[in-house]
Amino acid sequence: MAATASNKRVILKRYVTGLLSEDDMEVVTMEAPPLAVPAGSEAVLVKNLYVSCDPYMRNRMTRHEMPSYVPDFVPGEVLANFGVMRVISSGHRDFKAGDLVWGITGWEEYTVINNPESLFRINHPKLPLSYYTGILGMPGLTAYAGFFEVSKPKKGEYIFISAASGAVGQIVGQLAKIIGCYVVGSAGSDEKVSLLKTKFCFNDAFNYKKEPDLEAALRRYFPEGIDIYFENVGGETLDAVLPNMRLGGRIAACGMISQYNLERPEGVKNLFYIVTKRLRMEGFLVFDFYDRYYQFEEEMAGYLKEGKVAYVEDVVEGLDAAPAALIKLFTGRNVGKQLVAIARE
Amino acid sequence: MAATASNKRVILKRYVTGLLSEDDMEVVTMEAPPLAVPAGSEAVLVKNLYVSCDPYMRNRMTRHEMPSYVPDFVPGEVLANFGVMRVISSGHRDFKAGDLVWGITGWEEYTVINNPESLFRINHPKLPLSYYTGILGMPGLTAYAGFFEVSKPKKGEYIFISAASGAVGQIVGQLAKIIGCYVVGSAGSDEKVSLLKTKFCFNDAFNYKKEPDLEAALRRYFPEGIDIYFENVGGETLDAVLPNMRLGGRIAACGMISQYNLERPEGVKNLFYIVTKRLRMEGFLVFDFYDRYYQFEEEMAGYLKEGKVAYVEDVVEGLDAAPAALIKLFTGRNVGKQLVAIARE
Repeated sequence: MAATASNKRVILKRYVTGLLSEDDMEVVTMEAPPLAVPAGSEAVLVKNLYVSCDPYMRNRMTRHEMPSYVPDFVPGEVLANFGVMRVISSGHRDFKAGDLVWGITGWEEYTVINNPESLFRINHPKLPLSYYTGILGMPGLTAYAGFFEVSKPKKGEYIFISAASGAVGQIVGQLAKIIGCYVVGSAGSDEKVSLLKTKFCFNDAFNYKKEPDLEAALRRYFPEGIDIYFENVGGETLDAVLPNMRLGGRIAACGMISQYNLERPEGVKNLFYIVTKRLRMEGFLVFDFYDRYYQFEEEMAGYLKEGKVAYVEDVVEGLDAAPAALIKLFTGRNVGKQLVAIARE
Repeated sequence: MAATASNKRVILKRYVTGLLSEDDMEVVTMEAPPLAVPAGSEAVLVKNLYVSCDPYMRNRMTRHEMPSYVPDFVPGEVLANFGVMRVISSGHRDFKAGDLVWGITGWEEYTVINNPESLFRINHPKLPLSYYTGILGMPGLTAYAGFFEVSKPKKGEYIFISAASGAVGQIVGQLAKIIGCYVVGSAGSDEKVSLLKTKFCFNDAFNYKKEPDLEAALRRYFPEGIDIYFENVGGETLDAVLPNMRLGGRIAACGMISQYNLERPEGVKNLFYIVTKRLRMEGFLVFDFYDRYYQFEEEMAGYLKEGKVAYVEDVVEGLDAAPAALIKLFTGRNVGKQLVAIARE
């Protein structure tokens, strides 16, 4: 059986403690899988076009004594995450060669996917395919489900979003604007703040690195208090938010990126406000909302086609650049949704 | 107009920082109010029979820059809290002399209540009247609403309760048993642990002071994890609970007594489990559930009459003993619901 020439991939070199570095990963070239799945197999062979860099990957690089919500990566094995793929060969009745799909794949050129039931079809291939790693993929559904289902917004409410120019934050903010909320975002550079105000049309935005007293800053931006905090960062930002929440406020806990590279998480001191302000803080994972995906895809594709939402990506070219791209998430050097283009068709 | 001879009361001497001490309060004797409310007034004059000692009173003794959920006490003025009272004179059409009521009153012998709309009638006066400071009053409704409305239990779920022999904890545990949950409580002495197991029929209970590793202890008591944590203490207990929660678990945040005497609260480090385990942590205040009170009173009075729930009180006699009784809550020396008997009829 013919084989692709080779298969470049990014592997985890060792379990990571502390700050992730490029040296924790390695780009290697392997023998490629056969060009067709074996007869009788229900697997699909895909060519990876784009793969996504997402903060939660850092958690998978730490060895967990107790099983976490996603399996740990294994040193020596290829990294995996959401990607956009072209099916090359399929043993599964739902897919055929040529199909465009998105879902979990390897950080490599070609991947054999043994559970193709996990893949989503791409129904709007005329939109940029890379969007299916972001606004039309996992981060988009995360923003949509977390905002509407978890934080349960009402028109006119005050919304604060941290990491607001990131893959999820930029979408939450725009969805909040669409339904008539007042939206302020924080980000870690003036360039990102400018994006939030001009491109994403937030009501206001600020550079948290320039605010020595974050609690006071939030009091300035939200003199009436915050109804919904879309939590992407955790730690001291959460501590500054809690006293600024309004009675009955909601905190949709999507991620806590400020904590992922710490050996010991920061302590959050202001939790008693959860009692006195009757707050609801609720975590969620996008996996629990996969059954809404196609409904979401239609709605978001519509917004994109109508120009109702903007979207900013930060794309690096090729797997050799992938380790550095992943690290950018934690140093805040990405501007917009970070992804890797493996092959442009 | 005739007057009662005198009116003994407990006043706050100064705003409190750090650990509450008896010296922060003072028992003084004042001129008593007139024996009848003035013509035209809608106030009621009550004779206080029992007053409740509740942890939240500590928060009112600290000066808050921003208004909190209840007003701060004022140095020099009488302390106030829930009590059981006999109406002596009423200018309000809903009350007449002789009525038994419960609600917010002063820590004193006689109080003029200017907003009698805030009072609840006592519909089961043949049960011990003191119960209306506890199982039939604010702590009872707190337990009932927090457990059923906030934590939304299902039969067979695993429930952990901290400060479990306290006013609220003992009731939550017994309600959980009634609907078929598995209930474990923690408390701070072997005597309390024994109460939990024998009197309140918890499935299990432990003395947290004898557990050097609380997280490991909870893993032993809940090998399947915790569905509902009824949070009364905060701080390191919360940190130990979070990794032991099950997917989709709920934390009903009722209070955080371990933190009330600290100038700077402890930091809680394990909040990321809120995301990975999709937890909901929700604060509540009993005030939001007052409209259910009479329904609750009937249900709980029924349980008491049928012997379905047990109830343990820790009663001190007289206002002179009230400051020390309040402090017992924070040193853990009370056994069961702490209250002060001012006058036994």
